[in-house]
Amino acid sequence: MSEIDELTRTLREFAKGRDWERFHTPKNLVMAISGEAGELAAEFQWLSSEESCSLKDLPTQNIELEIADVAIYLLRLCDVMEVNLADAIKKKIRINEKRFPITT
Amino acid sequence: MSEIDELTRTLREFAKGRDWERFHTPKNLVMAISGEAGELAAEFQWLSSEESCSLKDLPTQNIELEIADVAIYLLRLCDVMEVNLADAIKKKIRINEKRFPITT
Amino acid sequence: MSEIDELTRTLREFAKGRDWERFHTPKNLVMAISGEAGELAAEFQWLSSEESCSLKDLPTQNIELEIADVAIYLLRLCDVMEVNLADAIKKKIRINEKRFPITT
Amino acid sequence: MSEIDELTRTLREFAKGRDWERFHTPKNLVMAISGEAGELAAEFQWLSSEESCSLKDLPTQNIELEIADVAIYLLRLCDVMEVNLADAIKKKIRINEKRFPITT
Repeated sequence: MSEIDELTRTLREFAKGRDWERFHTPKNLVMAISGEAGELAAEFQWLSSEESCSLKDLPTQNIELEIADVAIYLLRLCDVMEVNLADAIKKKIRINEKRFPITT
Repeated sequence: MSEIDELTRTLREFAKGRDWERFHTPKNLVMAISGEAGELAAEFQWLSSEESCSLKDLPTQNIELEIADVAIYLLRLCDVMEVNLADAIKKKIRINEKRFPITT
Repeated sequence: MSEIDELTRTLREFAKGRDWERFHTPKNLVMAISGEAGELAAEFQWLSSEESCSLKDLPTQNIELEIADVAIYLLRLCDVMEVNLADAIKKKIRINEKRFPITT
Repeated sequence: MSEIDELTRTLREFAKGRDWERFHTPKNLVMAISGEAGELAAEFQWLSSEESCSLKDLPTQNIELEIADVAIYLLRLCDVMEVNLADAIKKKIRINEKRFPITT
């Protein structure tokens, strides 16, 4: 079982165990992604781009967990919408390769 | 090499090949995640929760690609911030398990 | 009638005339605000802070309209939730004045 | 002086008094709008549309202040970008009137 499938299954069990599946409609999960993306934005809003680059040398536990929150709801959304995330990413990369060809 | 690592590497090569790495500061990538999360929200804003649930029976190519866009910038962010995404997700799940114990 | 009340009334008439009021639940409007905030973010994501500062000297028609979109849904939300926006802003400023006193 | 101009001036003084103007670049303010829109989304993410409609009968102090936060950064953005918000909204309404004519 792939890493993504395994995380997806763990998150599904987590929701099921707390009777949260009824809240996890696609619409609600998309809104939760916006919410978590907003919290992530809030961590960076007053930093310059340069300051944001040096964050990786700092204890960024908080940011790591905000990133995880976005990813968790994204995986839940893929699960309930039956989207294969790795395939979707690969499909999008192929589209971008045509849209933005490498110029040499 | 894990699925996530492989996608991360492909996306890094994609950025490198187009000389886009200089744009991919943590701050800019976080903003791109907000942008893509917003596009995803726009797809669902006028749907009822019930309608959003039946989307998976429709040709949802568009939504799949919006989901991929969020994931792509999230993977790029983890790459430039040297965050191990799978580990971050697992860490967050453990925190949530303590915060929201299963009541029986 | 104040400027904000007048814009609010125009937007209410606009929605009513198109039978859109049934879509304008607080939840949906909040999601529309996320969507429009995301489109605004997308306009700025790859710019440096310095570049973003010089935008006001450029034809920024597009950005102006994105800002308007966020404001429009915010006014609709206040209307359907019966929130007086000017009062809410003043209340928040008073809270911030206590939270962040001027140090001399 | 209009209500919007007055709030704008108060917010400018607030930022100036705390030496925050240097943080209030358009890019940073747009990111702050995303952050606050995300916090607003988080308040509504698990509610049904119906539940969100009945919120106005509840003590929604919190939501009112989240709405104010979005508006505050939007006004600051208009101020630093020299955008007349009321004019921008009116311009957008005229565009929407053409895009979505009333059908009778």
